[in-house]
Amino acid sequence: MSEVDTRKPHSHLQSQLARVTELLRRQHLVEDLAHRQHGDHHDLVDSLVHRQHVAELQREVDGLHPADIAYILEALPTDERLEIWTLVKADRDGEILLEVSDSVRESLLADMDRPEMLAAAEQLDAEELADLAEDLPDDVLQELMHRLDADQRERVQSAMSWDEDQVGALMDFDMVTIREDVTLETVLRYLRRLKELPEHTDKLFVVNHDTLLTGVLPIRLLLVNDPAKDVSEVMAADANTFHPDDDVAETAQAFERYDLVTAPVVDSSGRLIGRLTIDAMVDVIREESDAEVRERFGLREDEDIFASVWKSLRNRWAWLAINLVTAFIASRVIGLFEGSIQKLVALAALMPIVAGIGGNSGNQTITMIVRALALDQISPTSGKRLLRKELGVALVNGVIWGGVIGLVAWLLYRNLALGLVMTAAMTLNLLLAALMGVLIPMSLIKLGRDPAMGASVMITALTDSGGFFIFLGLATIFLV
Amino acid sequence: MSEVDTRKPHSHLQSQLARVTELLRRQHLVEDLAHRQHGDHHDLVDSLVHRQHVAELQREVDGLHPADIAYILEALPTDERLEIWTLVKADRDGEILLEVSDSVRESLLADMDRPEMLAAAEQLDAEELADLAEDLPDDVLQELMHRLDADQRERVQSAMSWDEDQVGALMDFDMVTIREDVTLETVLRYLRRLKELPEHTDKLFVVNHDTLLTGVLPIRLLLVNDPAKDVSEVMAADANTFHPDDDVAETAQAFERYDLVTAPVVDSSGRLIGRLTIDAMVDVIREESDAEVRERFGLREDEDIFASVWKSLRNRWAWLAINLVTAFIASRVIGLFEGSIQKLVALAALMPIVAGIGGNSGNQTITMIVRALALDQISPTSGKRLLRKELGVALVNGVIWGGVIGLVAWLLYRNLALGLVMTAAMTLNLLLAALMGVLIPMSLIKLGRDPAMGASVMITALTDSGGFFIFLGLATIFLV
Repeated sequence: MSEVDTRKPHSHLQSQLARVTELLRRQHLVEDLAHRQHGDHHDLVDSLVHRQHVAELQREVDGLHPADIAYILEALPTDERLEIWTLVKADRDGEILLEVSDSVRESLLADMDRPEMLAAAEQLDAEELADLAEDLPDDVLQELMHRLDADQRERVQSAMSWDEDQVGALMDFDMVTIREDVTLETVLRYLRRLKELPEHTDKLFVVNHDTLLTGVLPIRLLLVNDPAKDVSEVMAADANTFHPDDDVAETAQAFERYDLVTAPVVDSSGRLIGRLTIDAMVDVIREESDAEVRERFGLREDEDIFASVWKSLRNRWAWLAINLVTAFIASRVIGLFEGSIQKLVALAALMPIVAGIGGNSGNQTITMIVRALALDQISPTSGKRLLRKELGVALVNGVIWGGVIGLVAWLLYRNLALGLVMTAAMTLNLLLAALMGVLIPMSLIKLGRDPAMGASVMITALTDSGGFFIFLGLATIFLV
Repeated sequence: MSEVDTRKPHSHLQSQLARVTELLRRQHLVEDLAHRQHGDHHDLVDSLVHRQHVAELQREVDGLHPADIAYILEALPTDERLEIWTLVKADRDGEILLEVSDSVRESLLADMDRPEMLAAAEQLDAEELADLAEDLPDDVLQELMHRLDADQRERVQSAMSWDEDQVGALMDFDMVTIREDVTLETVLRYLRRLKELPEHTDKLFVVNHDTLLTGVLPIRLLLVNDPAKDVSEVMAADANTFHPDDDVAETAQAFERYDLVTAPVVDSSGRLIGRLTIDAMVDVIREESDAEVRERFGLREDEDIFASVWKSLRNRWAWLAINLVTAFIASRVIGLFEGSIQKLVALAALMPIVAGIGGNSGNQTITMIVRALALDQISPTSGKRLLRKELGVALVNGVIWGGVIGLVAWLLYRNLALGLVMTAAMTLNLLLAALMGVLIPMSLIKLGRDPAMGASVMITALTDSGGFFIFLGLATIFLV
């Protein structure tokens, strides 16, 4: 699995999308006809055909899994998206709103009135409601909180009180708790009385009378052990427990590392307050990696591909503005050497090579280091060793690639000194790229910042301005 | 969760790493002393102290979870990594080899002799063995296959026969199968006789006498239903099933979409042949997104941060070479206009701005489109709409940012015409970036290629050469 494979059509999803799009298209054709023949006797027939198409579309939508409807909504342009959205039964609205991306959710909510939002929200659990809450208008949210019972309201408020990168915001409250002094037989009878177990239940939580977590009973052990045994004989004491203020990215890594499906969340005194499930952690992993790619290229948030031009501009402008400033600084560095360029115009043609290769190489170094930092693999002592290695790689690359391009410059401009300056400048700029490629992310970490964010812009700015300065400076000293 | 947060120390893991590093350091100090006082009477004492340290380290390592040992091995430089590796008990070697990254695994295997490899491999299941097989020397692999019983050998060979991006390579064979004509009571008794259930068992697979999959029995339903009921009354028929030749990335998306923990794998005639578990799918999601970032910056494979300079060079050189070629082409484009630059040297200073901003903007477009393509959100009809939107964004950006930088160029060089050419060139290059940012990934998909790979290099090459050509060309026509 070394490549991101997106070639093959996702047959199942793609065909559902194709079917819905086809139905929409047919319906639009009819509407179009009706519009052209306005006032004609065809009207009645058309409206019948129209109604038939809507009914067909409705049946299609009703048969889909909420996650699949979410996918189709995301893949449709805004107007068609809203057509489908009106066909979704009210009792599934809430679930689907949770599945779609933030920007699509915004566009769907913008199309709903107050009673619709209330109806959608009422289908949800406390932690789901907390998730949706920030996107709801204030008055709807207040009305909603008012309708909840005290217990539920407290849960929603507690979930909302945590940052979205804290475990508290992702835990749910669907837990089965048992006592340790009962037999497995009793537990089995108790479960049977529950009629339904929460999704993903792979273990039961063992608590004492103070709701202190004393252990967990994996279902696997419940099933294979003698029912006459006590829970305390079978339960595992050393569960992986988490706290509501734990970082979700680290928690997701722990789920990966220890192959967890669910895990208990306890407060500082060890009381069981909720649980985490693997599906929430998978979402964290997916979002985290999406965010890394986005941020490297200056997209502030997940962009709905059918967002308006205006929204896209807002999402992207900050990065372009920063890049414009750094490009302008690089331009002024070149400006310092305009005299040299006028005397030897080949410098203008060669200088972007020095800057560009430095930027590429620096970005490779940063990518590797950010990755290792995220996985916590770099300690202060290994930092120096890493720097030595990166400088070594840069030196070899500089001598080889700088040598090649220096040779080409020599032959092209019949100027040996120019070739030598080119080789020297490439090597020095690659060394600068390696140095900064290690220092920038490690300094960002020390400053408590996200090492991925902005690192790419910074390294490119440095290798651009630095590359121009080194190359044009050396040329001014030795050639002009 | 919009940021990749790596600030907070992963307290648990970091402290384990710190402890091991400290023990290693102390031991090295002693060895160092012993070395300096060679032949001295301190030798005996030193060797005692040394042995004590090794014993302490051994205890530390023995207490760690295999996944944590894997983490520590990845975070240590090669020599220290091998010191710890020799301390790991032989019966855990196999498990740990599966946990570490490919490059670290290579470095560990290089340090093992044949009997050690055989001992490590013998602890593993068929599908784990298949995973490790490609990294083992041929003679070890043959010996190993020879020692397996026929059943196991067939499973290893079957798992090895699939590509690593196919479901067949990731399925395991730890399944509990039941018949549909028995009661739940019988199933419960059967499970109790098994003594142990496979990891992640959230459902039992219901098969007929031909091993055709007829349904699944979720453990949740087994636990809450009346034991007197038959399996056929309780089981679910519409399970999400997969085929061994399905694409793993799509399968992982299905696990995410439908919140699955395990799922059956069936052959073309519907026979149950294996199962997939969420932990393997989480690994797929993680690797897939890591691969995307790596490939965008031209790292061919996961680089062990302590890899040798030589290995790093091999991993990175291809991308640098390609970039060197594209940079050289851009340089020749500039070369075409050396006469104009000589007459108006300000062009040399301003041209990198046009090229750079075009590259940034094009990369933003590509990032968004690759993302949408991976999620299957772009249909042929929506392609045109997307292109219109991107061109709209580019036009507005060109007029605004091109206007700003044109104004600055006018004021700086007291040349209105130069400012106007700058604005026009920026706008045209941004339009080129938008056009190519949409067309490149969509064409790569049509050609059956990975849209993420190489797209960044291509767009940058086009906006560099294109930007230089547009700006210098306009300048030559209107200014010189």
